[in-house]
Amino acid sequence: MTLHEFAVIEKFFKIIARSGDGVVLGPGDDCALLSVPPGHELCVSTDTLIEGVHFPSRSAAALVAQRTVAANLSDLAAMGAMPFACLLAMTLPAADETWLAAFSKRLSSLLDAAGLPLVGGNLSRSAPISLTMTVMGTVPAGSAVRRTGARQGDGIFVTGTLGDAREGLGRLLAGDRDGYLAERYANPPSRITVAHRLRDLASAMIDLSDGLAGDIVHIMEASGVGAEIRMDSLPLSNALIAQVGQQQAARMALFGGDDYELCFTAPMSRADAIQAIATETRTPITRIGRVTGERLRVIDLQGDPVEDLAGYQHF
Amino acid sequence: MTLHEFAVIEKFFKIIARSGDGVVLGPGDDCALLSVPPGHELCVSTDTLIEGVHFPSRSAAALVAQRTVAANLSDLAAMGAMPFACLLAMTLPAADETWLAAFSKRLSSLLDAAGLPLVGGNLSRSAPISLTMTVMGTVPAGSAVRRTGARQGDGIFVTGTLGDAREGLGRLLAGDRDGYLAERYANPPSRITVAHRLRDLASAMIDLSDGLAGDIVHIMEASGVGAEIRMDSLPLSNALIAQVGQQQAARMALFGGDDYELCFTAPMSRADAIQAIATETRTPITRIGRVTGERLRVIDLQGDPVEDLAGYQHF
Repeated sequence: MTLHEFAVIEKFFKIIARSGDGVVLGPGDDCALLSVPPGHELCVSTDTLIEGVHFPSRSAAALVAQRTVAANLSDLAAMGAMPFACLLAMTLPAADETWLAAFSKRLSSLLDAAGLPLVGGNLSRSAPISLTMTVMGTVPAGSAVRRTGARQGDGIFVTGTLGDAREGLGRLLAGDRDGYLAERYANPPSRITVAHRLRDLASAMIDLSDGLAGDIVHIMEASGVGAEIRMDSLPLSNALIAQVGQQQAARMALFGGDDYELCFTAPMSRADAIQAIATETRTPITRIGRVTGERLRVIDLQGDPVEDLAGYQHF
Repeated sequence: MTLHEFAVIEKFFKIIARSGDGVVLGPGDDCALLSVPPGHELCVSTDTLIEGVHFPSRSAAALVAQRTVAANLSDLAAMGAMPFACLLAMTLPAADETWLAAFSKRLSSLLDAAGLPLVGGNLSRSAPISLTMTVMGTVPAGSAVRRTGARQGDGIFVTGTLGDAREGLGRLLAGDRDGYLAERYANPPSRITVAHRLRDLASAMIDLSDGLAGDIVHIMEASGVGAEIRMDSLPLSNALIAQVGQQQAARMALFGGDDYELCFTAPMSRADAIQAIATETRTPITRIGRVTGERLRVIDLQGDPVEDLAGYQHF
């Protein structure tokens, strides 16, 4: 790293919250030092977001900060973990001070809100813009929600509404930055609080980053089960239906990525407790289907099984 | 991530050692789960290596694996930490199976040797090749060696020989892949074992990634001290002296980066104990100067202070 890069780090990343319970030593040494609470396990995950691949070229700095944090928090939420600390490796083509000021300001407020101190990082010069965040969270030992616990007969649930981010990205690329759908793509909500409350009820959980139909297969494979999803049960926003119609909205809910909502399974006996959590955390939770014996079955809006799921996903 | 990328991960990264003490759950869920030993703190650091920036374009896959692991292990060594776990976020322009096979094979053997299980990662498609590793290590609580503990009168020590990697990179770019110096660049030694032994003796420690003269300033600033380094004390390999001469070799030792050796300070009363560790771990340790009250002074081979250090570093 050049001296110039140190100056950039000093200037823009000193403002970022870096203290937190368990942070013994923050950035500035060869390593940060963390103290995991006794009786807890550490959850760790890493995600890379690249300009032109994971977000549009010339995106606003705030959007990049929001999606980087959302993608990483979402992995913690999917385990039922509470945020503990993060590191951020940034690759930037140039030290653009305007961009950096906007990025670090937004990042700082997001990490503050999440209770996720930034304890280390790396800055490299290259194109395109690339951000690799590593997040750490904590769970009481043995209580993390894995993908492996789904059982036949469990209900399948999702948080929020699905498909918005897919259409929102389209709106954004078309120049509509300020609409509801564009905002759903640009700034996905954190599901940390609701996930934490669901930890003892959910039998399996995953975050929806690539699209429901693809992501749920990971639960099915890990748990050795099948799933039946009813398209007429998928939670769709009024904004999405108004924009693309019911049929297309349901397809986007199934196959559109980037929502960062949660999909989880739980015994049907827990349905009332789950709805109570939805109410208390003001997070919509919708049952969209059930865990079955084998394969993924999707029931379309007419009540018929979709025969060719792969062919069905073009929109 | 596309299904194709999952297939690549499955094929090439399943072979990599992923179990280890403290790994409750390895890759394959939203997060890995780790259990830090009671009474220990976690050391974490992240480093990015980019093709054409941090290693030459079209480098051999083995070299890329070696330098990625070396850069990251070196940060753990600098704290006196023992390896615990790592995550690897890879960006590749294409799923080149030959490259991936060579990379994952070499990575696997390096992580095995280091006792550093790979517990998670990310694969993205973009150019250029970029690798961001996040390493975690453990130290008994309170025992990590920071940069802040250097005291006036302490000796300044380094491991190994310095400057080899700088000339080695030059040899490599000139097409000489197999010489001693090229190998010093391509495959820096791990200093984890000696660092672990030095943990209770060193007052401050840092790894040498950017060059001694630059890196030692971080210890000086963190500790609020100065340093005097004698160029006639710098440990130089016979190969480097034979290649570039004594004077140039000493400059490369001062200003050349990429060595991943350790620089540490310790009370002179510990000099004998330090030499005993050098012998036991078969790691050369050389005293190169002393901690002073203020600023960095370099004494040249003629015994005179170097007046213009910045102007002195061109080679």
